[in-house]
Amino acid sequence: MKYVYLFNEGNKDMKDILGGKGANLAEMTRIGLPVPLGFTVTTDACNNFYENKCKMSTEIKNEIFEKLKEFEKMVHKKFGSKGNPLLVSVRSGSPVSMPGMMDTILNLGLNDEVAESLSNKTGNKRFVYDSYRRLIGMYADVVKGLDTHEFEKVIDTFKKKRKIKLDIDLNEDDMYKITLKYKEIYEILAKEPFPQNPYEQLIEAVTSVFKSWNNERAKIYRKMNDISDSLGTAVNVQEMVYGNLGSNSGTGVAFTRNPSTGEKELYGEYLMNAQGEDVVAGIRTPKKIETLKKEMPDVYEEFNKYCEILENHYKDMQDMEFTIENGKLYMLQTRNGKRTAKAAIKIAVDLVNEKKISKKEALLRVEPNTLDQLLHKTFDEKELKNAHVIAKGLSASPGASSGKILFNAADVIKAKNNNEEAILVRNETSPEDIEGMSSASGVLTIRGGMTSHAAVVARGMGKCCVSGCEDLTINESDKTLTTKDGFVFSEGDIISIDGTTGLVYEGEIKKVESATNEYFNTFMSWADSVRKLGVRANAETVADATQAKKFGAEGIGLCRTEHMFFSERRIFSIRKMIMSKTDNQRQIALNELLIYQREDFEQLFRIIDGDSITIRYLDPPLHEFLPKEESEIKKLAKSLDMSYNELVDRIDELKEFNPMMGHRGCRLAVTNPEVARMQTRALIEAAINVTREGIKVKPEIMIPLVTDLKEFKFVKKIVDDEASIVMKEQNQKIDYKIGTMIETPRAVMMSQEIAEEAKFFSFGTNDLTQLSFGFSRDDASKYLNDYLDKKILEYDPFKRIDENGVGRLVEIAVRLGKKARKNLHLGICGEHAGEANSIYFCHKIGLDYVSCSPYRVPIARLAAAQAAIKARKN
Amino acid sequence: MKYVYLFNEGNKDMKDILGGKGANLAEMTRIGLPVPLGFTVTTDACNNFYENKCKMSTEIKNEIFEKLKEFEKMVHKKFGSKGNPLLVSVRSGSPVSMPGMMDTILNLGLNDEVAESLSNKTGNKRFVYDSYRRLIGMYADVVKGLDTHEFEKVIDTFKKKRKIKLDIDLNEDDMYKITLKYKEIYEILAKEPFPQNPYEQLIEAVTSVFKSWNNERAKIYRKMNDISDSLGTAVNVQEMVYGNLGSNSGTGVAFTRNPSTGEKELYGEYLMNAQGEDVVAGIRTPKKIETLKKEMPDVYEEFNKYCEILENHYKDMQDMEFTIENGKLYMLQTRNGKRTAKAAIKIAVDLVNEKKISKKEALLRVEPNTLDQLLHKTFDEKELKNAHVIAKGLSASPGASSGKILFNAADVIKAKNNNEEAILVRNETSPEDIEGMSSASGVLTIRGGMTSHAAVVARGMGKCCVSGCEDLTINESDKTLTTKDGFVFSEGDIISIDGTTGLVYEGEIKKVESATNEYFNTFMSWADSVRKLGVRANAETVADATQAKKFGAEGIGLCRTEHMFFSERRIFSIRKMIMSKTDNQRQIALNELLIYQREDFEQLFRIIDGDSITIRYLDPPLHEFLPKEESEIKKLAKSLDMSYNELVDRIDELKEFNPMMGHRGCRLAVTNPEVARMQTRALIEAAINVTREGIKVKPEIMIPLVTDLKEFKFVKKIVDDEASIVMKEQNQKIDYKIGTMIETPRAVMMSQEIAEEAKFFSFGTNDLTQLSFGFSRDDASKYLNDYLDKKILEYDPFKRIDENGVGRLVEIAVRLGKKARKNLHLGICGEHAGEANSIYFCHKIGLDYVSCSPYRVPIARLAAAQAAIKARKN
Repeated sequence: MKYVYLFNEGNKDMKDILGGKGANLAEMTRIGLPVPLGFTVTTDACNNFYENKCKMSTEIKNEIFEKLKEFEKMVHKKFGSKGNPLLVSVRSGSPVSMPGMMDTILNLGLNDEVAESLSNKTGNKRFVYDSYRRLIGMYADVVKGLDTHEFEKVIDTFKKKRKIKLDIDLNEDDMYKITLKYKEIYEILAKEPFPQNPYEQLIEAVTSVFKSWNNERAKIYRKMNDISDSLGTAVNVQEMVYGNLGSNSGTGVAFTRNPSTGEKELYGEYLMNAQGEDVVAGIRTPKKIETLKKEMPDVYEEFNKYCEILENHYKDMQDMEFTIENGKLYMLQTRNGKRTAKAAIKIAVDLVNEKKISKKEALLRVEPNTLDQLLHKTFDEKELKNAHVIAKGLSASPGASSGKILFNAADVIKAKNNNEEAILVRNETSPEDIEGMSSASGVLTIRGGMTSHAAVVARGMGKCCVSGCEDLTINESDKTLTTKDGFVFSEGDIISIDGTTGLVYEGEIKKVESATNEYFNTFMSWADSVRKLGVRANAETVADATQAKKFGAEGIGLCRTEHMFFSERRIFSIRKMIMSKTDNQRQIALNELLIYQREDFEQLFRIIDGDSITIRYLDPPLHEFLPKEESEIKKLAKSLDMSYNELVDRIDELKEFNPMMGHRGCRLAVTNPEVARMQTRALIEAAINVTREGIKVKPEIMIPLVTDLKEFKFVKKIVDDEASIVMKEQNQKIDYKIGTMIETPRAVMMSQEIAEEAKFFSFGTNDLTQLSFGFSRDDASKYLNDYLDKKILEYDPFKRIDENGVGRLVEIAVRLGKKARKNLHLGICGEHAGEANSIYFCHKIGLDYVSCSPYRVPIARLAAAQAAIKARKN
Repeated sequence: MKYVYLFNEGNKDMKDILGGKGANLAEMTRIGLPVPLGFTVTTDACNNFYENKCKMSTEIKNEIFEKLKEFEKMVHKKFGSKGNPLLVSVRSGSPVSMPGMMDTILNLGLNDEVAESLSNKTGNKRFVYDSYRRLIGMYADVVKGLDTHEFEKVIDTFKKKRKIKLDIDLNEDDMYKITLKYKEIYEILAKEPFPQNPYEQLIEAVTSVFKSWNNERAKIYRKMNDISDSLGTAVNVQEMVYGNLGSNSGTGVAFTRNPSTGEKELYGEYLMNAQGEDVVAGIRTPKKIETLKKEMPDVYEEFNKYCEILENHYKDMQDMEFTIENGKLYMLQTRNGKRTAKAAIKIAVDLVNEKKISKKEALLRVEPNTLDQLLHKTFDEKELKNAHVIAKGLSASPGASSGKILFNAADVIKAKNNNEEAILVRNETSPEDIEGMSSASGVLTIRGGMTSHAAVVARGMGKCCVSGCEDLTINESDKTLTTKDGFVFSEGDIISIDGTTGLVYEGEIKKVESATNEYFNTFMSWADSVRKLGVRANAETVADATQAKKFGAEGIGLCRTEHMFFSERRIFSIRKMIMSKTDNQRQIALNELLIYQREDFEQLFRIIDGDSITIRYLDPPLHEFLPKEESEIKKLAKSLDMSYNELVDRIDELKEFNPMMGHRGCRLAVTNPEVARMQTRALIEAAINVTREGIKVKPEIMIPLVTDLKEFKFVKKIVDDEASIVMKEQNQKIDYKIGTMIETPRAVMMSQEIAEEAKFFSFGTNDLTQLSFGFSRDDASKYLNDYLDKKILEYDPFKRIDENGVGRLVEIAVRLGKKARKNLHLGICGEHAGEANSIYFCHKIGLDYVSCSPYRVPIARLAAAQAAIKARKN
C-alpha cells in the first residue's frame, strides 16, 4: 500500500485516494502548469490512522519523510534548514468537497532559527515574523486544540499601545515581539514550548488534519450531504508561496466562464499584496480580473492561457485559485465550478457548440432538480442577504412570494379581488381551501410533509409553498402567528416565503422573474431526442394543462377529477349529491355536476388535442367535500330540506378514523355507481362534442385504488355500459381505454389477474408508499426526521422512490402485469414521477412514461434523458 | 350424457349429478332398504335446461319417458292407468342442501278418470279426492305460478257451510265437491283446464322444479351460503306412499343418536295417520319414537335395524324420514344429521370407540368454529323463542349476556362494584374503555367491524360483544338508545346481547352455562397429537393467561404491553410520561410504569412457567392514551404543572389524520428510546426475579411495525444495551430472543434482510390486511358489505386471511426470511390465527405456530389438526 504520492505521481482520476484537491494538483502538475510542488498523504493513510486507534503508523511516517526528501531535492530547499528553508502548507482534501469543514496549517517549517536566518536573508523581517506568529497561532488551535482567544488579545494590546487600527500597520519590531509573546502564551497553555523540530510540526499537523475528519461540524456536514464517513480525507503538503510579499505579489480566484450567466468570459477577482483569506475577508475590495490585464499583462496572459488549457483538459468550466509571488504565477487549485442552472445550461450548450463535449455529456452536466430555478420566481440575492429568517419549514413547492398573512381561504380570495398579495397560512389545508390556495401568492402550513395536501396541490398549481413549518404556531382566535422565539405576527403583516429553500422571512423581498431562453429550449430538445420515457403532466385545470403543454408535456397522465369540484358552486352541488335524502335530489345534483364536468373535459381535450388524457375517477373520501363551518352546513341543510342537526349527524356518520384507507377510490364506485356513471357520461359526451369540432381525443379512464380483478371489472362494466348508452344516443363512437392505478400492495399481488382486463397501469406511488410503510404522509413528518437523522432511512421515501420496498413492489407488478398482457402500457403518476433518481428507476424497470406536476415536466424530461444515457453506460 | 337415473342405478357418491336426496335414495335402494321406487333427473339436465333458454330438450323428455316405462314395470303400475295407476311425487334435490328453497309437487298422475277409478277401487273416496284437490292446488301454484288464495277460500267456505273447524272433518262428498271447485278456479285463473294428461303433468312439474332453482329465495340463499349458481338441482320422481291411509299408516323423522347430547339412542317422533307436513305443522303433537315400539313393535324393530344399517353404512349419525303405509315401512330419506357441538364431539368420540371411524376421521367431523358454543354461556333456547329481537349487529365476540344499559365505562365500573350486571353501550370503544369493558357483562357498539377495537379487545377478554350494530342510535345527552323502529331504551333498561349471533334482545333472558367435559378433553387430545402447528394465546392479564393455559395454549404468542397500561392509575402515569415537560417529570413517570410493568411480567412468567412469552413493545399511537374528558385533562395538567390550554394544545399536536399509519409501533422506540428502555428493564428484571423463584422463563421480545433492517437494528440495540446493563447490575444472565412482527408490506419486501437480525417473525395479519388493501378496519364496514353482497370479495379479509393478496405477501416473507435464516421461527398473531381456513393456510405455508385469543385456542387446536390431516390427504 502506497500512502504518499508526490504531485507528479498522481492524476485527476485518483480522487478516491488523493482527495479532490490532491488529484487536481497532481493533474495540473502532470500537464505542466506551475503548481508549487508537494505531496499528498492518501485517504488510505487516514483510514489506517483510524483503524490504528488514532495513531499514525511508523510505516506512514517513514513514507512521509522519504517523500519529503524527494520533494526537497526537487525544490532545492531543505526543511528546517537555516540556509534555504522549505516552508509548507498542510491542507485537507477529501474525495468529496467539504469546504471549510476541516483544518489547514500554513508556514510549517518555521522555528526560531529558521525565522531569524530567513529574516536576515530576505530582509523582510516583518513578513517572516508575521508568518511565524501565524504558524504558532494555527498550530495551537488546530494541533493542540487550545483557546486562541489569548493570542488575539496580544494583537489588540499591541495595536492599542501603538494607537493603530489595522494589523498591516504593525511594524517588523511589533511582529517580532508579538511572536515572542505568542510563544510564551503557547508554552503556558500547552504546558510545553512551541516545537522547534519541523518534522514534529509536520507529523502533528498531518495527524490533526486526519482528526479533523471526525470533528463535529464535518460529521454533521457529511450527514446533511449524505457523504459516507468511511471516505477519509487526504492531506496535501505543499511548498508555501506568498501573495503578500509586496506590490508584485498577489492572489485571486477565477472562473473560466461566468458562473451566473454562463457567458464565455474570464470571471473572477484578485488582490495584490494579499493572501487568499484577504480576498474572502472583505476588508479590502478585490479587483475584477480584467484589471490584471493592465496591471500585469504578462501574468494575465499566462493565466488566461492556463484557463484555456484547464477548460480544454477538464472539458468543463473551471473554478481556480492562483497566487503571484514576486511576479511569478502559481496555480493553487482547479475544480469544476459551481454555477446557476441558467449558466449550467448555457455552458453545456456552448461546450457542445465548441465541440468540446457531446450532447449526451452536456445532458449529464445539468442537475435536473436545478431547472426548478428557471421555472419560478426567485428572491433577489442581494436583498436576501439582509433578510430576516423567522422560520424554516419544508421546501414543498418551489418559488418565491410575499404577501399579507391571512388565515383563511375566504380572506385570501377577498384580498385577491382587491389586488392584494396574500400568503395563506394554515395549520394544514383541506380540499375546501383550494380556491384560496389558488388565489394566494403563496401557501404556508404548520403541519404536513412534502406530500401533504398543501404540498401536493401547490406543486400541481406551481404555487410557492412551505409546509410542515413547525417553528411557527397559529393562534386561530387572536389571528396571530408566533415564531419559536416568541415573536408575534398579526393578520395583515407581510412575510415572504421561499418554497425552494423552505425559509420564511419577515417583510417583503424583491423578486426576480425567471425565464427560459433559447439555450434552455435547445438543451431540452436534446433531452427529448435521447429519452425513452414519455413525460406527461398531472393537470386538471385550463391553467395547469396550458402550462404543462408549454413545458413540453406529452399529454396528461393524471387528471384528478375531484379537483374539478372544489370551486364554490361545484362543491355545493357535490355536497348536495352526497347528502341527498331522495333519489330525486341526488339526480338533480348529479345533473348539475354533469354539466360542469363535461365542460371541463371539453376544455382539456381542446388544449391537449392529439395527446392522451388519463382521467382518474373520483378518488377522495366523500367527507372531504363536506362543509365544516356552521354557516356552510346551514346553507346545505336548507337546500336539502333537512334540519341542521340532522345534517351534522349525517356528516358525522361519514367521518373516518383513517380516511386514507377509507371509503374512497373505486370503493365509491362500488357503493355509489351513479357517480361513475355521471363521470362516464360527462367524459364521453365531451369527447363526442369536441370530436365534432375536429379535435382528436385519446381518453384513458383510470380506476383508482383497485385491489382486485372483480372490483376492477365491476367498475369497468359501469363505465362500459354507460359509455355505450351515450355513444348510442349520439350515434358516435369514441375510442377509450380503461386501466387502473396500482397503488395498493394487494393490487400488486393481483397484477397478473388485473392486467387481463386493464389496458394500462399507472403506479400511484404516493399511496403505495403510504401503504407499504404504513406511513400516513400527512402525519409522517412527526417521526420521519428522526428516521433521516438517525440514518435509518437514507432519504424521504415520499420524495424519492424507495427502491428496496416500494420499488420492488412496482417491479413485481410490472413483471406480473406483462405476463398477462405483453403490451400493457405502464406509467407512474405519484410525486416520484418528477424526481430524478426515481425517474432513473422508472426507466430501468421499463415503464413507458412518467406523469408529474406541470412545473416538474422539464425536470422529468431531463432526468429521463439522463436515465437513458446512464442506463446505456451501465 | 345420461340425464335420468333409476334409483337402482345410482349411489351415495353421485351427489353432484343426482343431488343429495337423490344420491341417498339411490344408496338406500342399492343396499336393499325399502325405498319407494323412482328415478332422478340429473343436475346436468337442469343445466342443459338453462343453457337451452329454459326449455326442456326432446332428448331429456324422451329419456324421462323411457325411465318411466322401466319404473312402471318395476312397480307393476302404470302412469295414468285407470286399472293400476302410478302416482308420483316430484321433489327437488341439489348437491348442497337448500331446505325449503325449491318446489315440490305430490300426487302427480291423478286426473278425473284415475281419481274416479281409484276411488272405486280403494273405497277411500275422501282420500283420493283430498289428494286430487291438493295436486290441483300445488300444480296451480308451482307450475302455473297462480295465486293460491282463491283455493284456500274454497276450503274455508266449505268448513263454514258445514260449521266445522278442521280439514279432517270434511267428508268424502265435501272433498269431491272441493275438487270440482278447484278445477273450476284453475280454469279461470290459468285460462285453460287442469291438464288431464299425466305425462304433461310430469314434464311440467320437472320443468317447474328446474325453474325454482332460480327463484329469488333460492338465489338469496345461495348467495348467503356461498353456494355456486352453476350447480343446478336434480329432480326426484318417486312413487307416492301415504302415511294417512288410516290407523296403521303413519310418518315420522328420527336421528340415530341424540343430536343435542350425542347419546347413543334412537331419537325422533312420528304421527299415525298423517303426512310428513303434519309432523312439522304442530297441530297434532307427535309421539316420541319409543312409543312406536309398543304401538307397532315389528315396524319399530325393522326401523331400528335400518337405522343401524344406515349408521354403519354412512359411518355417521343419520337423520331419516320414514312413512308407514298400511303397516309397511318405507324409508324416504337419510342424511348425516345436524347436531350441536357437544353432540358432535360425543358422537365423534363414540364412533371411534365403536371402531366405526378413525381418530382422524373423527377430528374432521367437528367444525372448529362450533367449539365456541362449548366455551361460552348461551341463552336458554326455550326462552329465546319468545324473546323480542330489537336489533342485529355483528357477532363480534361469542357469549350471551344481559344487563342494564350504561353508556360509559365509569358507570359500568360502579355497577360492577354494586354487583349489578351491565352492558356497556358505546358508539365505539377506545382504549380508555378497557376497564369498563372488563367490568361489563357484555359490550355493544354501534360502529366498527369484526376487528374494531371493541371486537378485538372483547374477544381477547372472552367477553360477549356485539359490534357495528347500526340498527341502533345512541343519544349521548339524553342517555337513550333508539331502535330502527323508533323504540327508545333509557339508561338502566335491561337488554340481552348474543355475541354468537349478533342479536340484541329486549329484557333479560335466562342463560345456560356451557361446559367442556371428558369427551371434549379426549377429542382435543387427539387433535393435539395430530397437529403440527403450535397454538399460543394472545394474552396480557392474569385472567387471560390463566384462561389460555386452561384452554391448552402453549405459551403466549402476543402480549400487547400497552394493554397493561389502561387501568386508571397506570394510564395516568403513561399520560404523565407522554406529556412531561421536563426530563425529570418524564423519568418519574417512567419509574412508576416500570414498577407496574415489572409486576405484570412477573405474574405472566409465573403462569406460563416453562413456555414462551412473546412480548410486543408499545404499539399504539401515544395519543390513544391521552384523556378526552375535560376533568381528566385538568387533572393531568395540574400534575404536570401546566395550564389547561397548554395541555389541550399539546394533546392536539399529537392528533393524527390516519393514526393507523401514524406515530406508533417501533416508530415510538425510534423517537422515544426511553420507553423501550423502560420496557426492557421491566422485562429483564422480572425474568431475573422469577428465575430466582425457580420459574423457567422464555421471553421473546417482539418489535412491532418494522419496515426496515436498520430500523429493527436500531431498536434491537436499545433493547440489547439495556438488557445487558440490567443483567450486569443483577449479575444474572437471561436468555431472550428478539424478533419482529411482519405487518407492513415493506417489511415483507425486506424480509430477507430483516431475518438476518431477527430470530423470529410473527405475522400481524390485521395490520397487513389493512395495509395491503388499504382498508381501515375501523371504517371498512361502510363499504365491505357492498363488496360481499356484490361478490367482489368472497369473504371478509379481516375474518379469514385473504390468500390471494395478503397470503401471497406472507408466503413471500416466509420464503425470503428462510433464505437468510433457515431456522427462522414463524408465527401469526392476527385475528386470523383463530379462524379455521386461515389456520389451514398457515399450516400449508409452513408456519410454526398460531397465536389467538384465549377463547379461540381450542378452535385453533382443532383447526390445526384438521389442517394437518387435510394437507396429508392432498
